[in-house]
Amino acid sequence: MRRLAINADLGEGYGAFEMGDDLGLLDHVDSANIACGSHAGDPSRMRRAVEAAAARGVSIGAHPGFDDLWGFGRRAIRMDPRDLENLIAFQIGALCGVAAFSAAAVTHVKLHGALYSMAAAEPAYAAAAVRAVAAVDSALIHVVPPGSELERGSIEAGLAVAREAFADRLYAPDGSLSPRGTPGAVLSDPAQAAAQALALALDGRARASDGSEISVSADTLCVHGDAPGAVAVAQTVRRALVEAELSLAPLPDLDLKDGA
Amino acid sequence: MRRLAINADLGEGYGAFEMGDDLGLLDHVDSANIACGSHAGDPSRMRRAVEAAAARGVSIGAHPGFDDLWGFGRRAIRMDPRDLENLIAFQIGALCGVAAFSAAAVTHVKLHGALYSMAAAEPAYAAAAVRAVAAVDSALIHVVPPGSELERGSIEAGLAVAREAFADRLYAPDGSLSPRGTPGAVLSDPAQAAAQALALALDGRARASDGSEISVSADTLCVHGDAPGAVAVAQTVRRALVEAELSLAPLPDLDLKDGA
Amino acid sequence: MRRLAINADLGEGYGAFEMGDDLGLLDHVDSANIACGSHAGDPSRMRRAVEAAAARGVSIGAHPGFDDLWGFGRRAIRMDPRDLENLIAFQIGALCGVAAFSAAAVTHVKLHGALYSMAAAEPAYAAAAVRAVAAVDSALIHVVPPGSELERGSIEAGLAVAREAFADRLYAPDGSLSPRGTPGAVLSDPAQAAAQALALALDGRARASDGSEISVSADTLCVHGDAPGAVAVAQTVRRALVEAELSLAPLPDLDLKDGA
Amino acid sequence: MRRLAINADLGEGYGAFEMGDDLGLLDHVDSANIACGSHAGDPSRMRRAVEAAAARGVSIGAHPGFDDLWGFGRRAIRMDPRDLENLIAFQIGALCGVAAFSAAAVTHVKLHGALYSMAAAEPAYAAAAVRAVAAVDSALIHVVPPGSELERGSIEAGLAVAREAFADRLYAPDGSLSPRGTPGAVLSDPAQAAAQALALALDGRARASDGSEISVSADTLCVHGDAPGAVAVAQTVRRALVEAELSLAPLPDLDLKDGA
Repeated sequence: MRRLAINADLGEGYGAFEMGDDLGLLDHVDSANIACGSHAGDPSRMRRAVEAAAARGVSIGAHPGFDDLWGFGRRAIRMDPRDLENLIAFQIGALCGVAAFSAAAVTHVKLHGALYSMAAAEPAYAAAAVRAVAAVDSALIHVVPPGSELERGSIEAGLAVAREAFADRLYAPDGSLSPRGTPGAVLSDPAQAAAQALALALDGRARASDGSEISVSADTLCVHGDAPGAVAVAQTVRRALVEAELSLAPLPDLDLKDGA
Repeated sequence: MRRLAINADLGEGYGAFEMGDDLGLLDHVDSANIACGSHAGDPSRMRRAVEAAAARGVSIGAHPGFDDLWGFGRRAIRMDPRDLENLIAFQIGALCGVAAFSAAAVTHVKLHGALYSMAAAEPAYAAAAVRAVAAVDSALIHVVPPGSELERGSIEAGLAVAREAFADRLYAPDGSLSPRGTPGAVLSDPAQAAAQALALALDGRARASDGSEISVSADTLCVHGDAPGAVAVAQTVRRALVEAELSLAPLPDLDLKDGA
Repeated sequence: MRRLAINADLGEGYGAFEMGDDLGLLDHVDSANIACGSHAGDPSRMRRAVEAAAARGVSIGAHPGFDDLWGFGRRAIRMDPRDLENLIAFQIGALCGVAAFSAAAVTHVKLHGALYSMAAAEPAYAAAAVRAVAAVDSALIHVVPPGSELERGSIEAGLAVAREAFADRLYAPDGSLSPRGTPGAVLSDPAQAAAQALALALDGRARASDGSEISVSADTLCVHGDAPGAVAVAQTVRRALVEAELSLAPLPDLDLKDGA
Repeated sequence: MRRLAINADLGEGYGAFEMGDDLGLLDHVDSANIACGSHAGDPSRMRRAVEAAAARGVSIGAHPGFDDLWGFGRRAIRMDPRDLENLIAFQIGALCGVAAFSAAAVTHVKLHGALYSMAAAEPAYAAAAVRAVAAVDSALIHVVPPGSELERGSIEAGLAVAREAFADRLYAPDGSLSPRGTPGAVLSDPAQAAAQALALALDGRARASDGSEISVSADTLCVHGDAPGAVAVAQTVRRALVEAELSLAPLPDLDLKDGA
């Protein structure tokens, strides 16, 4: 049976500001996406997230976002793709720098927030992200939405891709995520998230906001860490997948397709 | 005869803001210290600085400073050395990330501004800087003031050190630099800077602000890029050293002492 | 004859970073738009800009932009209009705080860069800006593009508006500005800028990029300060208007229409 | 009997980052110190804090800190007092700008964190703060440590001062606060904080870390909002003062000494 990784965002506090329960989440995920100082994350929080993940055998990746602390990387920013590729490489490199204190290796990249959404849809942004990932380390796994420009561009460039689905976010009928802020957009009920995770993992399907069933192929399932009850959601999702005898493993241990 | 490198700070603009004449300077230096986004320097300016240096055979290094854009890294900030070591590793890594687009390797580190001064004098800051450099890449050359805590700590840790003197800054009798803002602190007359460079390179000596002669051992001479006339100063200094038949080379090509 | 004000952006440096020749410009303008710390401008540069303007009888206004130092406020940011209204009020207030050291009063507001363009076109952004200006001080003059959502919203809210045209920017046939970066978008030739200023001031007309003539009603003409030769442009524009016997005065001394 | 105000810091989150339970605290305090965007606080959080305070009859003041989001204003920064005075005026003005949306008036200023401590001890910093407060509005009440340079400077300048003591922080024998991070520095036990509040309010005395009794004259007592259990501490402190028949009122309603 195909293996799957549960991933979550980590280290998204900033200085004195907490965000999510990093340590609580780490017991229930396989791979962690670590904020890199632009939308969230400071050098010391990045370091602690790396070390906590490494201590639990959770693989680590860079989670670059727009340079937008106020907006937590959720505001769409229109910028020159050449600046964007540099911004992303900067952030991946910064995480590698901080990770150098431990034996942990940075093995994947997943874009954050508005940058993830824009690069999924826009070829120029997708290409910028792919160039950055490939330049810093062409062995990095790129976590991307299935069917997106990010997936297409990554495969073309020969990057290994992990297609991502969301356990705790409601899908729109077109396969995108229902926008945060719309009712029901976040599945905060652990049982509901676990049910969606099972449907995604076993059947490659999810129930969309209009009741229709949509197809979503995924190598990795995301659970969010910044909502109240996030740890319970992650725990319940994991337990459901394990009970269904799905095999869970960090991203580098999956069988991923790449462009080679 | 012992070789010497002329170094200068580069890429210290930010977004739309220019600082210094990077391209003008590059013709007259051997090694460039590139700002890493905290006191100055954005990802795209870092990229351009790396590529321009590489195209001219100028070796590149990281120039980490305090996270203080308003103060340009010149304000003393009192912080936890554990945060400092992470901040420095973050910046070195960020430059490596951006440098990954070119074939250029980051081969040295030189602290910036108030961080350089504080770490020169304070063992806890010096140790934080040394831990960061050693963690990211123990082969990095650390550019340090001779006789400083930074030199001591680096040698103890087995890092290669390049002792630095300043061609265009007036020395105080105790070997420190006359503070910016005091009259004559910056030698903006090219001939005067060249004379000091020669005295430093040939005799390991400089004339201090009180007229006394002080001893300064240097592997590398710094010329500043952010002053009006900086390019003329760099050019004149270089010409004087070449005419005195001193051998100039990038930092990695020098014979440096290390702690091994 | 109707009076006219020449306005320019001022105080757009940041910390050690210079931007434009503030003092050079001030001799040739009637009103200054002072950056407020978000896209550019730090508290001390704002203070100096206020005092320099006041000393020359140049009226001062706030020049709020997106919170985007790297992009110099030129990147379009998609944000909640309620956040935007707060961001703008914050910046106007901040300038008033700094201006309190001098006798100068803040008498107008002009949005900056991408925020100006977006609010000109989008009712929700325009309304946010109008709410902010009206809340801080309903006597503030709002400098707006003629025919824009900003003009409509401001008049509806009873604000005094000063319609703005650009002496040194090429117009597109639809009355918008040719985007920076396209050839000829900035009129750096003083004579050319002066000719356009005269056409705008005397006839309410400008020659667009396709050669067509467009109609532009203006109470105030903008000259830019951040380009090389900006002072010469401003000086030439001013001289041409004076020689044509146009009456120039600071914004508060103009006869402006308002919604009352 | 002399009146007393309980004050607390408010609005110290930033963007998506929460800090403290603003609404919970507001029921138990008389005056709120609102972060102004430099060490914490964004324009929208400032707005909400102002409106929530105003709705409960809690008076509002500006809480300026160093421009240091990562350090939450707790890192000592060495800067030119002329820059500091501008930075403080900027922040007070910014709060006034945002407060303009409501009928609430900004009636006091209290420095934050490292800036409060440094200005308490250093005449040049104290003078800068006093100049800023007096320039923006000489009717503003300045909340200061008793016996500090801030008190002296404010009185000399004719500002109304409210001397502050801390209900929930342990005092050192010299009257300063035990540094955060030392054991017992924060009184998180509500009963203990209430006992100290009573001793301060009734007798002008507190028990210091070495067991000695020290004298502390206070017009206002601070309770902190950013600790777990902060609301319970504030509630218990208030109840104890009310039961002791002390009269509590917002800062503008106290009888304060000024320099007049």
